Amino acid sequence: MSRRTDSRATQTKRERLTRRDLLARAAGVVGAAATAPVAGQQSIDTTRRPGRGPNGLDQRSPFVTPRRDPSSTSSRTPLQDLRGTITPADLHFERHHGGVPEIDPGRYELLVHGMVDRPTVFTLADLQRFPATSRTCFLECSGNLRRGGPETLPQMVCGLTSQTEWTGVMLSALFAEVGADPNATWFLAEGQDAAVMTRSIPAEKAFDDAMVVYAQNGDALMPGNGYPARLLLPGWEGNASVKWLRRIELADQPFMTREETSKYTDPLGDGTVRQFSFVMDARSIITDPAYPRVIEPGWHEIRGLAWSGRGRITNVEVSVDGGNSWEQAALQGPVLPKAHVRFRHPWNWTGGPAEIMSRATDESGYVQPTWETLRAARGPNTRYHQNPITSWTITGSGRVLFGAERLQA
Amino acid sequence: MSRRTDSRATQTKRERLTRRDLLARAAGVVGAAATAPVAGQQSIDTTRRPGRGPNGLDQRSPFVTPRRDPSSTSSRTPLQDLRGTITPADLHFERHHGGVPEIDPGRYELLVHGMVDRPTVFTLADLQRFPATSRTCFLECSGNLRRGGPETLPQMVCGLTSQTEWTGVMLSALFAEVGADPNATWFLAEGQDAAVMTRSIPAEKAFDDAMVVYAQNGDALMPGNGYPARLLLPGWEGNASVKWLRRIELADQPFMTREETSKYTDPLGDGTVRQFSFVMDARSIITDPAYPRVIEPGWHEIRGLAWSGRGRITNVEVSVDGGNSWEQAALQGPVLPKAHVRFRHPWNWTGGPAEIMSRATDESGYVQPTWETLRAARGPNTRYHQNPITSWTITGSGRVLFGAERLQA
Repeated sequence: MSRRTDSRATQTKRERLTRRDLLARAAGVVGAAATAPVAGQQSIDTTRRPGRGPNGLDQRSPFVTPRRDPSSTSSRTPLQDLRGTITPADLHFERHHGGVPEIDPGRYELLVHGMVDRPTVFTLADLQRFPATSRTCFLECSGNLRRGGPETLPQMVCGLTSQTEWTGVMLSALFAEVGADPNATWFLAEGQDAAVMTRSIPAEKAFDDAMVVYAQNGDALMPGNGYPARLLLPGWEGNASVKWLRRIELADQPFMTREETSKYTDPLGDGTVRQFSFVMDARSIITDPAYPRVIEPGWHEIRGLAWSGRGRITNVEVSVDGGNSWEQAALQGPVLPKAHVRFRHPWNWTGGPAEIMSRATDESGYVQPTWETLRAARGPNTRYHQNPITSWTITGSGRVLFGAERLQA
Repeated sequence: MSRRTDSRATQTKRERLTRRDLLARAAGVVGAAATAPVAGQQSIDTTRRPGRGPNGLDQRSPFVTPRRDPSSTSSRTPLQDLRGTITPADLHFERHHGGVPEIDPGRYELLVHGMVDRPTVFTLADLQRFPATSRTCFLECSGNLRRGGPETLPQMVCGLTSQTEWTGVMLSALFAEVGADPNATWFLAEGQDAAVMTRSIPAEKAFDDAMVVYAQNGDALMPGNGYPARLLLPGWEGNASVKWLRRIELADQPFMTREETSKYTDPLGDGTVRQFSFVMDARSIITDPAYPRVIEPGWHEIRGLAWSGRGRITNVEVSVDGGNSWEQAALQGPVLPKAHVRFRHPWNWTGGPAEIMSRATDESGYVQPTWETLRAARGPNTRYHQNPITSWTITGSGRVLFGAERLQA
């Protein structure tokens, strides 16, 4: 540091101390209530000795300890702690049916066969030689709703959705390579985990936007997200984007695997069952303020995420009076199709009880439903594809609690 | 796993074995030369016992070991290993002048003073209450060129550039909050590292797109990237985006700190020195194929990154004959301003010696120069803002080596 700068810094510090009782500040913009007049900076002086050098890999500050709440079969993204739209790959949610296999990339193989001219085994290097595509999109488990008591985090309500930038090969390129039979209408995707996860996928998705991906946020896939390669079906339920993908078989009918008969189907109120309900409906959640925040009266920015498996989010509305009136939130650009979009909306909390909630609309015109509407349409037994408007109640003392009573478990 | 799927899998394996010598494959698309006829899958069977459960934080596969090559003052992003445009935060390059301070976020403070109506100290919570903005952009050190011998990685040539999604508050909002004097034309940004990094920044940047950011890829900043808060000047040399930001002082002239007199200035060929050369010029680099790859004849996808501090990249051209002819590469959308964009271009390498290179053009019309053009304009003594076209030479045996002789050190 130059002496000149040194002397300026010192002078400034003295200047601040003499000014400290003189300063008055005007309030009135967002954040105003939270700022404080100049006082001596309390930070421990970190300028007196050199800090550590660069790490081989940088690591989070010891003051940052992300919460994932892993169970034996899943982990959830801490939505309440994240900002922006990208999920760090190590915080992407996981949902496993047979644990995480450890796969040697040098021995990885993907077989594509069935109704094709040239059954073919692709190594990882093979996949990586094909023309590559990158796409930022959300991935959401169709079981992504957990109702709970007042002290329920966004992570627990809705943490089975995450978003990274994926890179890989378009499945259509692999289908062209093997000579897919035009009469093939379905394909099976099979994982090499201990559950041998298998799902039947309509072939049309392969010619739309399905990919086999090997990179996530630039890097190799995380093991819990399918390393070294997985299927990616943008906008569709996460389970169908089979991880640790080892086999694709083309056919002219669905394969009726366990995961689309006893599970991942939707019993409806009329006694029928909805099957192959792949698309994730539009949804949103306010991630801040949310439990466990305690807020003070004044201006706050309500922040959350919205997404739709049908394309772009076109509108997010926010209500601060329990759904009686709605205002339009701002969407952070670029708004990508089938992607998390961050919405934000300023709110002056005057101190009384309040209930805040968000409602997403997508480019197909679909509007996120209330819990009552959803339950009336689906009946009481549906476990998957639940995307109701969820709310946070603010108590008179500023505690932010999950839901209104009707949504609490 | 259902028995039915089990039995199908077994049948398939038998089928593959009987077919293996019968299969002939047509070549001709990218990747064709790399794929192999069906043979027994070599992977170790990972389906016979459950894998591990979800981690609290997922961790990279043991087969993935990112290379950062940290020195005592910097680390470089392994561009040759990354795909897409996002850099995992733990692989973002670092460049320190006094090491990485460890800062308690609860005691962090940012003072904004000088030519303002209301000198103010902002805590981290204060900054986070202001309206937030997210922006994906590159950050590049102005010293980001290292010439070297044939065995030089993209990471070493050009690894002092990275890209994450940043979230924080617009600096213009803080300036409004403190009542910035309209006559203030410059501000000082000061870090709380042991170097007390200080830079003078034109005030107009504060009213354009400067931010104070506290999140990176959704998460808190990495310590090496300024935790808990740093300045972000999109498109400008990284050094000016002062990390561990503790003080901003508004003034009507630049402060002439060490970092803009003895360093971060550009001696030119005519004996004059260019000062305050903030903007990073358009640049590109082929990241694959690149050293240390060894390639086979056949189709390859040339892949790389391009970026410009002046706005959007509008065109990337690729030459495979040492710059004699150029073809237009495809750009992966969305192409964001002041951001890394991924370009890709198919190439059929027929086996002879070749020299491959890329050339970026941005929306201002600026075209990335050759080394000869750059050296003629700047003279021999410029250390910063070197953005020449760089190339990879392919030997007859398929080795990919850095540069042509003229660029090797």
